[in-house]
Amino acid sequence: MTDVLALTSELIRRRSVTPFDEGCQELIATRLQRAGFVCERLRFGEVDNVWATHGSGSPVLALLGHTDVVPSGPVEDWTSDPFQPTVRDGVLYGRGAADMKGSVAAFVIALEQFVAAHPDHAGTVALLLTSDEEGDAIDGVRRMAEVFRERQQAIDWCVTGEPSSTRKLGDLLRVGRRGTLSATLTVKGVQGHVAYPDKARNPIHQALPALAELAARRWDEGYETFPPTSLQISNFNAGTGANNVIPGEAKILFNLRYNPNWNAAQLETEIGAVLDRHGLEYDLHWHRGGEPFYTPEGRLRAVAREVLGEFAGAAPEESTAGGTSDARFIAPLGAQCIEVGPVNASIHKVNENVSVADLEALPKLYRRLIERLLLP
Amino acid sequence: MTDVLALTSELIRRRSVTPFDEGCQELIATRLQRAGFVCERLRFGEVDNVWATHGSGSPVLALLGHTDVVPSGPVEDWTSDPFQPTVRDGVLYGRGAADMKGSVAAFVIALEQFVAAHPDHAGTVALLLTSDEEGDAIDGVRRMAEVFRERQQAIDWCVTGEPSSTRKLGDLLRVGRRGTLSATLTVKGVQGHVAYPDKARNPIHQALPALAELAARRWDEGYETFPPTSLQISNFNAGTGANNVIPGEAKILFNLRYNPNWNAAQLETEIGAVLDRHGLEYDLHWHRGGEPFYTPEGRLRAVAREVLGEFAGAAPEESTAGGTSDARFIAPLGAQCIEVGPVNASIHKVNENVSVADLEALPKLYRRLIERLLLP
Ligand SMILES: [Zn+2]
Ligand SMILES: [Zn+2]
Repeated sequence: MTDVLALTSELIRRRSVTPFDEGCQELIATRLQRAGFVCERLRFGEVDNVWATHGSGSPVLALLGHTDVVPSGPVEDWTSDPFQPTVRDGVLYGRGAADMKGSVAAFVIALEQFVAAHPDHAGTVALLLTSDEEGDAIDGVRRMAEVFRERQQAIDWCVTGEPSSTRKLGDLLRVGRRGTLSATLTVKGVQGHVAYPDKARNPIHQALPALAELAARRWDEGYETFPPTSLQISNFNAGTGANNVIPGEAKILFNLRYNPNWNAAQLETEIGAVLDRHGLEYDLHWHRGGEPFYTPEGRLRAVAREVLGEFAGAAPEESTAGGTSDARFIAPLGAQCIEVGPVNASIHKVNENVSVADLEALPKLYRRLIERLLLP
Repeated sequence: MTDVLALTSELIRRRSVTPFDEGCQELIATRLQRAGFVCERLRFGEVDNVWATHGSGSPVLALLGHTDVVPSGPVEDWTSDPFQPTVRDGVLYGRGAADMKGSVAAFVIALEQFVAAHPDHAGTVALLLTSDEEGDAIDGVRRMAEVFRERQQAIDWCVTGEPSSTRKLGDLLRVGRRGTLSATLTVKGVQGHVAYPDKARNPIHQALPALAELAARRWDEGYETFPPTSLQISNFNAGTGANNVIPGEAKILFNLRYNPNWNAAQLETEIGAVLDRHGLEYDLHWHRGGEPFYTPEGRLRAVAREVLGEFAGAAPEESTAGGTSDARFIAPLGAQCIEVGPVNASIHKVNENVSVADLEALPKLYRRLIERLLLP
């Protein structure tokens, strides 16, 4: 059994359902200390984090991963136990195999090999592990980003191990993610009887034209490789259940996924202006889930494109699609961020898996990235 | 104690919460038989009805009432027990005092006095009592109207005892009611993640422009004394609760109150056309709650206007506002319908009441109406 398969299996055996780490990080920190890394454990609430560094000064290349996983769902839906790593037909099955204990194990092997071969490399190579990426993302990377900001810890390049590949390892290079902004809107009216509409003020009727305008709006045409900014109304609830009562209020949730044409404050202002223009009486609460990040053409993207091309046999697609990732908290520190990891088809599903061939190629891929960035 | 106060009190003591009659009708039928009426008891399901007639042939004047009441709500909210009729300061309190056991008792007294004084009056004077006016209105007046249609029982004039007065007895003559039409609309979409709107079809977004158009539409400018037709969306429910999921469908309830410019079939066609024009995929279920009725100027209105004017000291307001009443099922038989009853300020509330002075005037008022219509 190869080193990376053994370590991935050992991590899968630890039932680190978010936000619990269950000893994954200690296992890794102990190994990296033995390899010459300085490891700092930072626990916030229930969330474990570790910051392991080798070398000093700039440039700083940080690898970013998480040891927590999403729940397995009903165990009986799985072909083998989600927390008993099992290889069948050249594929490793287990919760976290692809998202992202395989990448984390590959990071560790790559770092060990790199510092063993180049103990006096330029700058700093580092690993940041968190344990609430799949949950609230409050006491993990968000808190660690604050720590870095306070310490003025610069990060030049950040490589996240999120499973980015679509069909084969290295076929997609994630170079950005949209931002996410959520709103809870309460439109206020005056309750009444449907037979006396003049004595009531129907909050559904009030809300409709404003919401129709927001839903129909084309916010932009996209940004570089980003898809267009999109607003989606996810929930609309109003009414007493009775068909003869005009309700007193309507509660609406909506979410925006936005590219770097916008920031949260601009969107909040624009949307408030639409609601005001329609004369709504309302309460509006915003939750900023993370600004977009984008890594334009430069050293990191160029190197990553070449390395992924070597492994996939063709230049990767460079994409900014998909949900959110922890990179959104590192990018505002001034870091160029990319995401490179295994095929994501099975993540968050039953029978999550990674091909053993891809898993065994990953340490080489990450080591090659580190060498190209930190060696002359 | 006057006859009408005693009979009203006796009816209030019977806890005839809809659809139960609790012996009210038998009490009345026994009295009217003694006065020379022919009384027919028609029970459908849990609902009691009685049809009492005196005389024969046309013209037919039917008085229409119900013996059921709405629930009392918490008894401790009442100053005195809702089913223990209590007079305080010249006001009779109890559930049904105003809606409409007072009117029913006054009908009985008026009929007894009228046939005693005019045993050989022209045509037919009748009383129809039901016991589900406050509930589903299925086995009461709706079924009785079918019976009348089968028997070809003509009704020329119908006087409902619904509490119509606003400040003093006789200040308002109800000469029509709007129709009511309810809809349950399910707009179908395709569920998905807010990060991938292209892979989903948001049913809220689909519904908004069509509903905004329906809500904004001015259906008409009113009809004679009717207020304009109105559509009110009473309930809108969509969403999983999560703000990152585009729901698969949206469920909307709406209700129309419409004047005689429209009938239910026309409205259903118009609204279906709007939904189709907006390209919605939907299910739509209609519930026809009753067509509008309207009694134009003629003998009944003219007589009622004069009689009410005598009691109120001024010509009554002639109105078609308000909810629905059982008259909507009698009007399609070809009857001219009006509603004349006591002050409605307390109906369906705690401490429902009627002034003893109004209650004692009511038999005179109804008797005067009967005399003006059936005597030469
Ligand atoms: Zn992940
Ligand atoms: Zn009533």
